[in-house]
This record gives sequence, structure tokens and C-alpha cells, in this order.
Amino acid sequence: MSSSFYLKDIPLDEAWRRLIQALEAAGLWSPIGSEEIATEHALGRVTAEPVWARLSSPGYHAAAMDGYAILAGATENASDRSPVVLSLPDQAKYVDTGDPLPDGCDSIVPIEEVEPVGPRTDGRATEAIRLRHSVAPWAHVRPMGEDMVATELVLPAGHVLRPVDLGAIAGCGHSRIGVRRRPRVAVLPTGTELVPVGAETGPGQIVEYNSIVLSAQVESWGGQSTRLPIVDDNEGHIRDAAAKAALDHDLVLINAGSSAGSEDYTARVVESLGQLLVHGVAVRPGHPVILGMLDRAAALRQVGEAGRSLQEGARQIPVIGVPGFPVSAALTGEIFVEPLLSRWLGRPPAQPQSLQATITRKVHSSMGDDEYVRVTVGKVGDRTIAAPLSRGAGVITSLVRADGIVRIPAGSQGVEAGQSVTVQLYRTPEEIEHTIVVLGSHDLTIDLMAQFLAGRGRRLASANVGSLGGLVALRRGEAHLAGSHLLDPETGEYNLPYLEQYLPGVAIVVVALVDRSQGLLVEKGNPKDIRSLEDLTRTDITFVNRQRGAGTRLLLDHNLGKLDLPSESIRGYEREEYTHLAVAAAIASGRADTGLGIQAAASALDLDFIYLADERYDLVIPKEHYNGIILAPLLELLHDAGFRDAVQALPGYGAGRMGTVIAEIDRT
Amino acid sequence: MSSSFYLKDIPLDEAWRRLIQALEAAGLWSPIGSEEIATEHALGRVTAEPVWARLSSPGYHAAAMDGYAILAGATENASDRSPVVLSLPDQAKYVDTGDPLPDGCDSIVPIEEVEPVGPRTDGRATEAIRLRHSVAPWAHVRPMGEDMVATELVLPAGHVLRPVDLGAIAGCGHSRIGVRRRPRVAVLPTGTELVPVGAETGPGQIVEYNSIVLSAQVESWGGQSTRLPIVDDNEGHIRDAAAKAALDHDLVLINAGSSAGSEDYTARVVESLGQLLVHGVAVRPGHPVILGMLDRAAALRQVGEAGRSLQEGARQIPVIGVPGFPVSAALTGEIFVEPLLSRWLGRPPAQPQSLQATITRKVHSSMGDDEYVRVTVGKVGDRTIAAPLSRGAGVITSLVRADGIVRIPAGSQGVEAGQSVTVQLYRTPEEIEHTIVVLGSHDLTIDLMAQFLAGRGRRLASANVGSLGGLVALRRGEAHLAGSHLLDPETGEYNLPYLEQYLPGVAIVVVALVDRSQGLLVEKGNPKDIRSLEDLTRTDITFVNRQRGAGTRLLLDHNLGKLDLPSESIRGYEREEYTHLAVAAAIASGRADTGLGIQAAASALDLDFIYLADERYDLVIPKEHYNGIILAPLLELLHDAGFRDAVQALPGYGAGRMGTVIAEIDRT
Repeated sequence: MSSSFYLKDIPLDEAWRRLIQALEAAGLWSPIGSEEIATEHALGRVTAEPVWARLSSPGYHAAAMDGYAILAGATENASDRSPVVLSLPDQAKYVDTGDPLPDGCDSIVPIEEVEPVGPRTDGRATEAIRLRHSVAPWAHVRPMGEDMVATELVLPAGHVLRPVDLGAIAGCGHSRIGVRRRPRVAVLPTGTELVPVGAETGPGQIVEYNSIVLSAQVESWGGQSTRLPIVDDNEGHIRDAAAKAALDHDLVLINAGSSAGSEDYTARVVESLGQLLVHGVAVRPGHPVILGMLDRAAALRQVGEAGRSLQEGARQIPVIGVPGFPVSAALTGEIFVEPLLSRWLGRPPAQPQSLQATITRKVHSSMGDDEYVRVTVGKVGDRTIAAPLSRGAGVITSLVRADGIVRIPAGSQGVEAGQSVTVQLYRTPEEIEHTIVVLGSHDLTIDLMAQFLAGRGRRLASANVGSLGGLVALRRGEAHLAGSHLLDPETGEYNLPYLEQYLPGVAIVVVALVDRSQGLLVEKGNPKDIRSLEDLTRTDITFVNRQRGAGTRLLLDHNLGKLDLPSESIRGYEREEYTHLAVAAAIASGRADTGLGIQAAASALDLDFIYLADERYDLVIPKEHYNGIILAPLLELLHDAGFRDAVQALPGYGAGRMGTVIAEIDRT
Repeated sequence: MSSSFYLKDIPLDEAWRRLIQALEAAGLWSPIGSEEIATEHALGRVTAEPVWARLSSPGYHAAAMDGYAILAGATENASDRSPVVLSLPDQAKYVDTGDPLPDGCDSIVPIEEVEPVGPRTDGRATEAIRLRHSVAPWAHVRPMGEDMVATELVLPAGHVLRPVDLGAIAGCGHSRIGVRRRPRVAVLPTGTELVPVGAETGPGQIVEYNSIVLSAQVESWGGQSTRLPIVDDNEGHIRDAAAKAALDHDLVLINAGSSAGSEDYTARVVESLGQLLVHGVAVRPGHPVILGMLDRAAALRQVGEAGRSLQEGARQIPVIGVPGFPVSAALTGEIFVEPLLSRWLGRPPAQPQSLQATITRKVHSSMGDDEYVRVTVGKVGDRTIAAPLSRGAGVITSLVRADGIVRIPAGSQGVEAGQSVTVQLYRTPEEIEHTIVVLGSHDLTIDLMAQFLAGRGRRLASANVGSLGGLVALRRGEAHLAGSHLLDPETGEYNLPYLEQYLPGVAIVVVALVDRSQGLLVEKGNPKDIRSLEDLTRTDITFVNRQRGAGTRLLLDHNLGKLDLPSESIRGYEREEYTHLAVAAAIASGRADTGLGIQAAASALDLDFIYLADERYDLVIPKEHYNGIILAPLLELLHDAGFRDAVQALPGYGAGRMGTVIAEIDRT
């Protein structure tokens, strides 16, 4: 590993400075060329020049109503008592809306304001009209140029065209319009471990989907993307593919090989085909970003066409080495590709909407890095709260679920729980307003509920913090409701005994959601012959646990206590997972032999299930929200037959008590 | 005209009620069919079903760093003083990020945390590694299913797919995805007066562009549009075209012929091919909307294929008669087509963002109608203000320029100036924050300025209210600056004498923008031989005036006073236009013989210009904004060589004093 390739993370603004400097030197830090296209196909394109009206609109004085064209002066003394009669066609002429104002006329009387005189044809007067009021000159006339006057500015350059803009452009006489051409971006996935989506994956292989995300980003930002085939981890192959892409694109994205591992060739490839500007940017996730320039002459030599003359266009083009972790890749797109495309398209860079929110937990951040924390956002009562999601750079679902990003700038060590933060939104504030925030224990029913609520004007944002975590969140005003299955060891009662302790002074309604079977999940066929909790202490058994505060964890500890089994005697007791499915996955993959969980999770991953107990899973709802409009669709849903049927269909689930109010606790 | 076709406007909610009832009866008030497409092409499409993970991701325990895979237990006692040496490949194995965790290992030590022992190859240890700290189990390992666990809900149905969503879908094993098919919408323009964009227009002809707007709306809302050729005002032809369209579309839009004029056939066509549900909705602009259902069997008979069996699909489809005025047409799209497409696509209808703003002038509204008022919106100091734009239904540029819509519901007579209103935004609040509001006198330089500022992070929203109107707006805090060319008749001084009167107590900076030539605009060749203001009193001369408060109007009145010419002696003195170009257009079209205006307006419309005087056009800027960040790019622009050159290139314009501070008036 040559030292020149070792990562040296530099600050984001310094990285941009170097890139802009190189682009300026190459004449590329300015809008890209333009092309003329049919106005009707220009939706979403960016105007390359100002649009000046070629024609006036309307191009003539036009009737704005169906009626009779007259000279206003002739009606000067008309009144109810002394009506004026105007003869057809000398003093009044019938016109439809849009017809030109006939010569010698200066106003229109709407048809409903006249009395026809003489016989009628098609409902219209044939001889004369009688008028009982005077008419102002130019009444109900659209004067020429009312909308646009020839030579007037209709739209500026750099404008993203909307449907009404196309109407205005066509209306003032342009059947074609000059727009920025779409920047061509090559997306080159590299990695021997990658397989295309749809192919079967073996051990150590992963589905390549970063190129799908990057391509879709490019398209959504107005570029034109080429998804190239996957190249294996071979420096020569990558160099060949990058060189070819450089010849007919404006930008090349190489994904990944941007780190400092043994198979990270991107920096070497960039150096050999041009200039390496940046290797490592101090942003997290995303730091092993590479920025550079590819030389097209070098690219031609590489592909063995050194003799070929360079196409017209730039002699160099930028290249970005995009990190391999999916969250890093997507954020690199937002941080580097979007502003570059905006610059080329000559439009302002995307300015996400932002709002202030209270962050629900402490987030630690490295002093040296700009840190991008994904959060879900909801409005609970009067407060807007932001709950941090998984920070793993490999967890694409954290971006899927994210409502926004909190940026913790370099120089800060993080934010404290309860602190006010600025969230750059991925959704509109309107969507946030219609979001129900459910914290607490994870249950599959909550996913189903999200599905059913989507059609009822509500979005459901959930995070699994365990049953106790949910009650704590309610106390802090961070959720609308909590899912809870907390067994009280003394009374054997669910949830209610905990409310006094965790939600003192809060008026609460507890509503039953489901009854579900808990038990030990084991590999199909139960090869280690696990039969009860006592088996967990066997030395050949590895257990996987749920996190502290989880109802399932309480159930385990309660039963271990009853059986007098010390937790230290259980191998793997300290290994915590946060959902039933994660426990099931640990067992399915052989990482553990057994764990406590619900039957549905066992069925989902084709595991065997050793029944231990039934438990009640409730919704704990502060009265303030129970009576509010935001939860109304959710409470209705609990009595919806379709939803009940869907829940009953899950193995180990009973919906018999769904929607029953278990307790109403007033503490006002 | 049969009475059944006469317009009876019904309330909007009643119109929707009838439409939904008919759609429900036809089984069409529910999501449309779905199709399976490649995940990579699904950007912007709407999921037809929930997406459940097919594979877990990662599908195996994967190294999260480049480094060595080890058993954590072997490092238990490692410290700086007593390092642990692990031999290769038995106790430690090199892995790259993403590699599977080798059998018998449970954690990864990053390469930078180990000391290689023995000779190295490629920078890597070959014999052993030395470790000076202990390692936790599962450190730097991405456990199987960290991102997605097979069977987990990844995305709900009815979700509009974004780039990261495609990544998640592909990552959990779906190379194809079920999405709602795009509803097929036919757009049928009718009208003998219409010509396609690009064709030459004669008198009485207008460029047909509503179909471009409606088609682009349909596409932007996720539908697939077919723009049909223009059909003339012939009931049979329209019926034929509508019947054909009904056979292979989900919705037909007929534009226009929806009113009650002699050539308005749409209602009759709908009645003959199916069912007329609504003829006239109490919304303005837009009231002659038609809603109905087309019967496909009737459509087959109409096209002479009665024998042909009906395609699979609905037996009826909805039809909307869209009014002809462009603003009415576009709003009908927003009010009826968008919610219908959203319903069919199974996603929530568009919820525009809204904000509260102070309306700048009184808007009268009919008690019976829902009124949609287009407004520009800007933030001036701490206040968000909404300035109503032209209310003409024919003025498409009012929609182009609109930042949002204020809806005045039926039952209200309007809103008063200064009242707080809810604006449904067409732009993001961020764009509004970066908007400079210029009110006052119109000048072409303001258009140019908008053009130049677009590249500098500012949007310029201007409205022409005349010079005095601009000063009044500043006093009311409704604009950041005002363009003004107010001549004081007594001192001959521009603008300054008016400030004391109109802006008492306000600290002001007056900055010169341009010097410009004012004079009489006359038809090319000056056929009526107009030479001076005295000629305006000739009985063969029709004048066109500017509105009260306009600087040009003051210049006129001042000079008429000096010449002792009474305004009553001028024919057309009372006919007011609001811009120089509108005055020029009035003369170019023969509606008036002459008017006072600037030379640039004469040149623009190829008119002759009779020079009267030079005048100074200033920017009047409250100090509060002069020193603020919002105007900084504009003030810089006044010293930009490119901008000055562009201004000088306008005929009759001098930029010699541009940017000079004429006066600084402190009244604090």
C-alpha cells in the first residue's frame, strides 16, 4: 500500500475548493451546453436563456365573454326605464368568447345581460338587442397583450420548467425552447463480491444496488445516467472501464474501491488517468470519497485509440470515487453530485427545507468530521421531535425511513438529548404534520398498521426502543403512543402496574392491540433439542437476547428468576438484538442457537418455535393524543375488519380483544 | 340553446360528490391496476403492494472495515504492556470491507489498529499481528440482517419511490417491483380559432397551448398523456374524437367548449355518449367545468364499431370538460385531475405547503364562489406578504409568476388589505426567504435584474403599482425596495421631495439605477404627424394613459399643466395601462394613436418615438433592507460590468450613474 493512497480526510469545504479550482481550470465550473427542444417536451428542463415573448397574447382584442360586441358610447343613457335598442348587425354583433372584437366596437355585453328583440335562432337574437344599463368602454374585452406583450421577459434563464411555464412559452410564440442539455453521468460499479440484482447470491456475495441509487439520483436531479456493468476488483479492468466512460460522459462515478484496503484501486486509477485531487473527506458517513479529474487524452491512450482525435468537448472531466457503503454512497450523491449537476444546469442548488426539532437522544460525533445523522421527525403535541435512526453506513433503510438529516458540523462533539437541532427535511412539513410517532416495543402489527394507515391520510413512524423505552418516550412527549407488553412479575398483570411509575400524573388510555405467543426460537428441526429455559445454561447452547427494557427481556428475566437460573450461566445473554426478527435472523444464520421471541418471527424465517406463554401487547396512549385528530384514523383502524383479518393471519396472533379499552387512567 | 345546457354553477364539494358517486358506481373510485417493472426503472412510480424483504441484507456476517478477523476472546488480556500476538492464518485472517466473517471468527480488528509481525507483502502482515488492546465480540462486524431481515416490511403500498427506496428494494432481493400503472389521459383541444404552436396566427386565431399545460400536468402527476390533434367547433367531430379517446384511455379531458356559448358542444357530446353529471362549478377562475361519464359501448357505436367487443377494463370512464381560459384550465387540472390521479395511483393527494401571509390589497369575491387568487409572496423584514396578481382568467403569466394561491371560500365577500390569509404555496418557503420584492414603477431594467439575480441566489418578484404605489408599499412594509421616477413639479427634482411625505420617519437610501428617455410613442412612420403634447387635444387623436401614481403619468400631468392643456380635452386620457409595454401594445394594435412612455418600449414593438425629456429612475431602499443580507446581491449587481452593459444596450437607457447613492436620509 503506497502511502500516497492512504486516506487523509480533509474538510468538506476544502474538498469543494479543490474540485472547483480544477473545474474552473478546465472551464467546467459553469453551465453546460444547451439544446433546442419542442416546448411540449420541456417539462422539468432548465431554460438556457431568458425567454422573451415573440408574440403578444392575446394577439388581438378578444371577447372575454359570449355576448354582443357594441360601441360603449351608444349605451351612455341606458337605464331600466329607458332601455337602449341596438340593431343587428350594425350596432351589435354576436361574438363567442375568444372571438376578435369586430371593427368599430369597443366593448362586449354578456349574453345574459341583454334582451333579444324579434324572433330568435339558436337562442340568439336576430333583429336587435335591448339593454337596460350603460356599458364601459373595453368592458369584457381582453386587450391585445393583456397576458404577454411581445419582447417582454416571460421567464429567466436557469428556470426549471413547470406545466404552466410551457403554456406561457407556447402562448408567446415559441414552439421550441433552448434548455440546458442533460449532463451525462456514468455510474461504474466495481467489486468482485458484487452480483447484479436478480442474480442468486452465494456466501460473501452482495447485491449491487448503489448504481441503481446513484443513477436514480442523477436522473431525479436532471442528469442522464449510464449504469455500466459491474467490473471486478482488477485495477486494469477498472482503468479500462473508467477510461471508456470518460470519453462520452461529463462525469464518472466509480463505486467503490475508494478506501485504503488491498482491493481499493480507484485512487490509483484516477491518478494514472489524470489527477487525484482529494482522497478522503471528513464527513460521516461517507469519508473515503475521492475527487479527481480524468484526462480524455489519457483515456484515449488507455483504450488503445491514442490516434483518434478527441471529440469536441472538454479535455478533462471530473471523476468521483463514491464510497461503497450504501448510506455513504447516497449521501456522497447529495453532497457532491447534486451541486455539480445544479451548477451545470445553471439552476440554484437544491435547498432542502429545514425545521427546528428537539432531538430525542444524545448523539456523539467526532470533532474532526461533519456528521450527517438520519432522523425521523414527528410533531407530538406542540413539539417537533427528531429521533436518530441507525448510524450504520450500511443501513440503507435508515435513509428510506429518514424524514431528514441533522448535520453536526466539525468542531462539535455532538448534541445532547433535548437539544434543539436543525433538520434538513426529505419530506414536506405537511407530511410531518400527518405523522403518527409510535415508540416502544417492536411488533409486526405495527408494520401492518403503517401499511393500512398509508391509505388513511397518516404516515406511521416507528422506532423500536423496547416497552420501557416507549413509556419513557411518552413521558418526555416524544411519541403519540407506545406499544408495550410489560409483564409485572408480582401481579402477573401487563403494562398497568408500570404506568404509575413511568407516567406519573399523565392521563392515559390503554387499548388492547393483540395477544401473541412468546417462546424459544430454534433452528428448524431443533437439532440441539432445546425444550425449556433450563436448556439455556447448557454449555453447547449460545443464546441471543433482546435489549434491556424490552418486554421480551422482562419475560425472560422473570422466568429465569422463577427458575433460579442466573443470567451469567447463559452464554450469549449479553448479546442484544432490538427486534424479534433480528433475533430470528441470528438463529437462522447460526450465530446463536436460540432466543426468546414471538411465533410470527419464527415462521417468517422458517424456524421452529417452542411455546412458553401468551402475552398481551397494548397501545399506551396519553389522553391528550387519544382524543386528538392525529390518532383518529389509527383508533378507527382497530375496529376495521380488514385489519383484524390481516393480524389474525399472522401465526401466533390473536386479535380478539383488539380495540378494547383496558384501562382509562385520569390523573388530572 | 336548450335550457339543459345552461350553466348552473354548483358548489365544489357537491361537484366532487357527484363525480365520486358515479366513479364508485363504475368501480373506478379506487386504485388502478398494477404492473411489474424492473426496480431500476421505478423512480417516481407508486408501489402497488407493500414491499417485504425477500433476502436479508447483509445476507451474511460481513466485515465492516478492512482488517483482520479474529476471535475476540483471544484478546481478552491484551494491553499496551502485554500485547497479544495472533498468528496468520490460524488466529487472524485478512479481510476487506464486505468480506464474509471467516468461520471461527467473531470480530474484526481494523488494519490501522494492528502491528504487522514479520515481512510484509502489499503492506500486509504475512506471519502474525500484534494487538495492544482487547476487542469486543462482534466489533466491526455487520451482522446478517443488520439492514433488512427477510420478511420485514421495507415499504408500504402507495409509496412514491425515491432513489434510496430503489436501493432498499433491490438490496432485499427484488429485481422487479409491482407499481400502479400510469393512468392514461387523453387531452382533446377543440376550437376552430385554435392553431398549433409554431404555426402562424392570423387575426382571430390563437395558439393552442392548454393541451400542453394539461398534458404536462398529467405527466408531472404520474399519468401518461396523449395530446390529440385540435378538433374544430363541430359537434360531430368532437363526439367522434371523444368516443375514440374513450376506448383506450382512463380519462378524457375536453378543452374547451364547456361554456354556454353557441359553439360550446362539450356538454351535448358528454350527454350523448354517456352521462352529464355537472355543468358549471362555483369556482373562479374556472366555473364552466363539465364532469361526466363516457360509456364505452356508446363510444364504440359512435366510431362505427358497435360490433367490436369491449376491451377489458371499465365500461365507463370519466370525462372532464375543461374551460378554455388558460388559468381556468390549469386550475381545473389542479382541482379535479390531480386528486383523481392520486386516487388511482393509490397515494395521498398532493398537499401543497401553506403559510400565513398578510395580503397587500383588498380582494372582492362573489359570495357564491370559491375564489382562487394568485399571489406573489415575499418576506419583508419579519412579515410575510402576499400581493395579488392579475385576476384575469386569460393571463397565464399570472400563474407563472404566482408563488401561491389564496382560496377565498364561498360565503365570504373577500378579504381586506392587511388581513392574514393562508397561501397554498407553489414554491418552497426557502425560495420565498430568498425573494426580493420590488414594487413601484415598471422598468425593463427590473426584468433584466431578475434575470441576473437568478444566478446569484435571489429571486426577484416585482409588481407594477406605479412610483407612488411603490412608496406606499414601502411605508406599509410590503416591499424591500421601490423603483421610482417621481418628478416634483416645483423643484424639478426626482423622488427626494416625495420621501418626506410618503415615508415620514423612515431611514432611506436612494440609489440611482438608470437615466432614461421619455417621449410619445406613435405608430411607425408617425402617420398622424404627432409632434408634441399639444397634438393630444386634436379630435382625431386617441391617447392611452398610464395609471394614476405612475411617474410617467406625473410627467404628463406636469407638462400638461405647464402647457395649460386640460386633461378633459384629451380623448383616451381616462384609459389606463399599467406598463410601458402595455401602452406600446395599445398603439401597435391601433387601439390608440399615442401614449407617453420610454424609448425602449417603442423599440420593442417597432414604434416611433418622439423625445420629450430625460428622467432619473431610482431605487428607494429602506435602510433596514439596504444593510440586510437579502439585498446584498442586488446592490453588488449595480456595479457589475455585465449588467451595466446589458442595460446600456437598451435603447434610450443610460447607466452612467448606476449604483450612485443619491441620498441617505436618516430619520431615526
